[in-house]
Amino acid sequence: MRLVVIGGDAAGMSAAHTALRAARAAGLTPGEDVEVVVLEMTEHTSYSACGLPYWIADDVASSDDLVARTPGQHREMGVDLRLFAPATAIDLDKRTVTSGFEGEGSPLTELAYDALVLATGAEPRSPAWALGEDGDRITGVSSVKTIDDGHVVRHLVGRVGAEAARRAVVVGGGYIGIEMAEAMVERGFETTLLARSRVMKSLDPDMSARVVDGLRAAGVEVREGVDVAALEQAPDPAGFSVGATRVSAVVTADGDTLPTDLVVVAAGVAPRTELGAAAGLPVGAAGGYLPDSNGRVAPRVWAAGDCCEYVHRMTGERVAAALGTHANKLGRLVGDDVGRFLTSPDPASPGRLGGSGGFGGVLGTAITRFVAGGQHLEIARTGLSTQEATAAGFDVTALVTEGTTASGYMPEATPIATKVLADRSSRRLLGVQIVGGVAAGKRIDAAAAALWGSMSIDDLAGMDLAYAPPFATVWDALQIAARRLAERL
Amino acid sequence: MRLVVIGGDAAGMSAAHTALRAARAAGLTPGEDVEVVVLEMTEHTSYSACGLPYWIADDVASSDDLVARTPGQHREMGVDLRLFAPATAIDLDKRTVTSGFEGEGSPLTELAYDALVLATGAEPRSPAWALGEDGDRITGVSSVKTIDDGHVVRHLVGRVGAEAARRAVVVGGGYIGIEMAEAMVERGFETTLLARSRVMKSLDPDMSARVVDGLRAAGVEVREGVDVAALEQAPDPAGFSVGATRVSAVVTADGDTLPTDLVVVAAGVAPRTELGAAAGLPVGAAGGYLPDSNGRVAPRVWAAGDCCEYVHRMTGERVAAALGTHANKLGRLVGDDVGRFLTSPDPASPGRLGGSGGFGGVLGTAITRFVAGGQHLEIARTGLSTQEATAAGFDVTALVTEGTTASGYMPEATPIATKVLADRSSRRLLGVQIVGGVAAGKRIDAAAAALWGSMSIDDLAGMDLAYAPPFATVWDALQIAARRLAERL
Repeated sequence: MRLVVIGGDAAGMSAAHTALRAARAAGLTPGEDVEVVVLEMTEHTSYSACGLPYWIADDVASSDDLVARTPGQHREMGVDLRLFAPATAIDLDKRTVTSGFEGEGSPLTELAYDALVLATGAEPRSPAWALGEDGDRITGVSSVKTIDDGHVVRHLVGRVGAEAARRAVVVGGGYIGIEMAEAMVERGFETTLLARSRVMKSLDPDMSARVVDGLRAAGVEVREGVDVAALEQAPDPAGFSVGATRVSAVVTADGDTLPTDLVVVAAGVAPRTELGAAAGLPVGAAGGYLPDSNGRVAPRVWAAGDCCEYVHRMTGERVAAALGTHANKLGRLVGDDVGRFLTSPDPASPGRLGGSGGFGGVLGTAITRFVAGGQHLEIARTGLSTQEATAAGFDVTALVTEGTTASGYMPEATPIATKVLADRSSRRLLGVQIVGGVAAGKRIDAAAAALWGSMSIDDLAGMDLAYAPPFATVWDALQIAARRLAERL
Repeated sequence: MRLVVIGGDAAGMSAAHTALRAARAAGLTPGEDVEVVVLEMTEHTSYSACGLPYWIADDVASSDDLVARTPGQHREMGVDLRLFAPATAIDLDKRTVTSGFEGEGSPLTELAYDALVLATGAEPRSPAWALGEDGDRITGVSSVKTIDDGHVVRHLVGRVGAEAARRAVVVGGGYIGIEMAEAMVERGFETTLLARSRVMKSLDPDMSARVVDGLRAAGVEVREGVDVAALEQAPDPAGFSVGATRVSAVVTADGDTLPTDLVVVAAGVAPRTELGAAAGLPVGAAGGYLPDSNGRVAPRVWAAGDCCEYVHRMTGERVAAALGTHANKLGRLVGDDVGRFLTSPDPASPGRLGGSGGFGGVLGTAITRFVAGGQHLEIARTGLSTQEATAAGFDVTALVTEGTTASGYMPEATPIATKVLADRSSRRLLGVQIVGGVAAGKRIDAAAAALWGSMSIDDLAGMDLAYAPPFATVWDALQIAARRLAERL
């Protein structure tokens, strides 16, 4: 039996190791009875893309720290790991995967599989303006998705560091945009954040406005509703070749020219599914595979990670949610299910993670922070925003409540604004958004748990959350917010 | 219509103000149509007893900071507040409350009520050894329950502060004991913590042992399984009278003599219910009133706060849980219900806080910390301990998992040990205990929410909790713990 996994990051490696464990538990010997081949197109495995901004900010000493498991470690654990091995074709009928390119460095191989896991991840969106006339990315411009991206940005930061003016433009107002703005301010750059629509548009506008206020208080120039039209370039005296240029300014669609030394593109990601789509696998509206709750997408084929669209637990709709936490969870369930398949090809019982029968869906829970320029801002959300909930047919009522993270008399107390959303008639909790100081953000988890259980705002207001003066007000900020909304219904 | 509230702290004042608001909303005028009388036996209202250790530790500048609302503020808001007014008798048939003592300072008054709220709180247990031959508490010994206690301890700390040796013995290994040990170490005392059975016995022994390790690492001498037999006294040169003495040593039941300058008694509290019990109201095994989910204990009589036993949401059993957060929640529901009664004496609809129909019970959620002597220890628990769950008939399986609060490569990462308890056959989550560093404790809330919704360990393992490197590992510590236990079932 052979399992082929395409993609050697969180989802793929979780699946590979979990399947290996299951095989071993069933008395099979890896390498003899069962073979687990992982095809990884780069030289990197199992690294934390989410950690890149912190490495760039110098909070993390080395890219090695971001690597959970090295290729050598994976191999020691029984994975037949092939690096620089891009999968280029799948034949679902013949049950084969082709890897490499004819006549190029990566040797062309055709691998038969008994089980196939697609864990190809997501691709950072790379706008046309980021490319020069030669079709290559303009020097001084980078995305923040791979270890190589991290090296590029760190190299650029280092070079620019020698100059008097240190200016960076971050394009994209989402999580990575915020984190890269933090990193740039930390590294001493005059930083501009451009958002096509709004900064943190996964929050309601009244909450994202608080994030903008915090960024501005830290000295970040925030421009919302701004598209990039083009980049300007100038000769790069430190360039590798004669006549080399690098980015010198961002030209916005509304005609402004923003001089800069560095452009970070954090314009989101798209599921990488060309391979499966070409083989005939269905993809959703956001371009992702559509795994069931055990990760299955076709007979003998599973998918997990950022290449997927997940079921939103509250709406039943598919959503793209490129997050390591989902990749790990679904990857593991896929490994469980593949393991059952490999050891007993007609498995009856589904996985259990998430309540009953496998992956329980996503709630859109997310957290980030901006800690720089004298500001400490924690930002979190779960469930549906007002716009999302309205689109899903709920009769939304919502309220923002200001509180503190600890009893007001304690030195630990920091401000926290909590927005709670509920359905007017059923009183069901629909979502929570938090913007606050130290210890504000992770409080979202209690709300996420309440949403996971389809609880009401009365449940959230009344449940027994932990209280002691250094940790909470006697009514926790989350519960004051829920109670105030409940009282209006 | 007249509401009489006995007790002017969290529960009583929550009830009073909520009832007043309801009356106003119904068009009634306080002082004319409806009268809200609060009888408070001390001069203090609405203060945070939980904040006392932090005031003693000098984290909080003044006892005024611990007062949420002063007597003047309560009066301005329409409460007829009577201080130094101990309620001494209740007649449920005549519907009267007697306040004060004949011939003493507090004038004897008989008040008729239409509605009565009992919010008499709890009494710190005062062991016999704490009293001298004159029956008064020995100088140098204090509990930590009232503002006056806080003044006493601060005074003692200040006096002892002038001496070369500063030694304190804290008697009691529960939450207040831990917090007072922190305060004493912070104030420069050589501190001994005596626990009759175990330190933090609301945790399982393997988790409370971690607390003991942390305390010892901070230089606290911890002695478990130790009873106090007696106190020794010595002449007190700074005493108020000639021949005055004060505590000089604690003699343990096993014969040790521990020299000390100060003894803090944190040996728990007992519901203060003599008044109601004398009037014929039922009390439970722990001596507390037994309110229903709207706080009713008899026709026209309600109870809330530390004088009550609450229903444990998981077992249905009554438990004493003297915590401000319950006092506030039930106090408010009582106020709602009293408000409905006062404005429409046959109320149909119950309160909503807690899901459906009022108070939803308690889970035994609690949190504290020990931050002193170079240690930062956060301690939290929710649900049932192994002992409690076994006693309740569950088939308990449990596991301790070590993790970190943030991604291992982040400077924010601190160790966290998480113990998850589940029922073997139903896979129901039974409880969670946490001992860890910065940002460990409040994670208990997600588990509390899961327990509130009677969720399984698979739910806890699979739910969508917030992840970003400064805030969590990609599998949150709580979820690694739940998953590992789930995998064993």
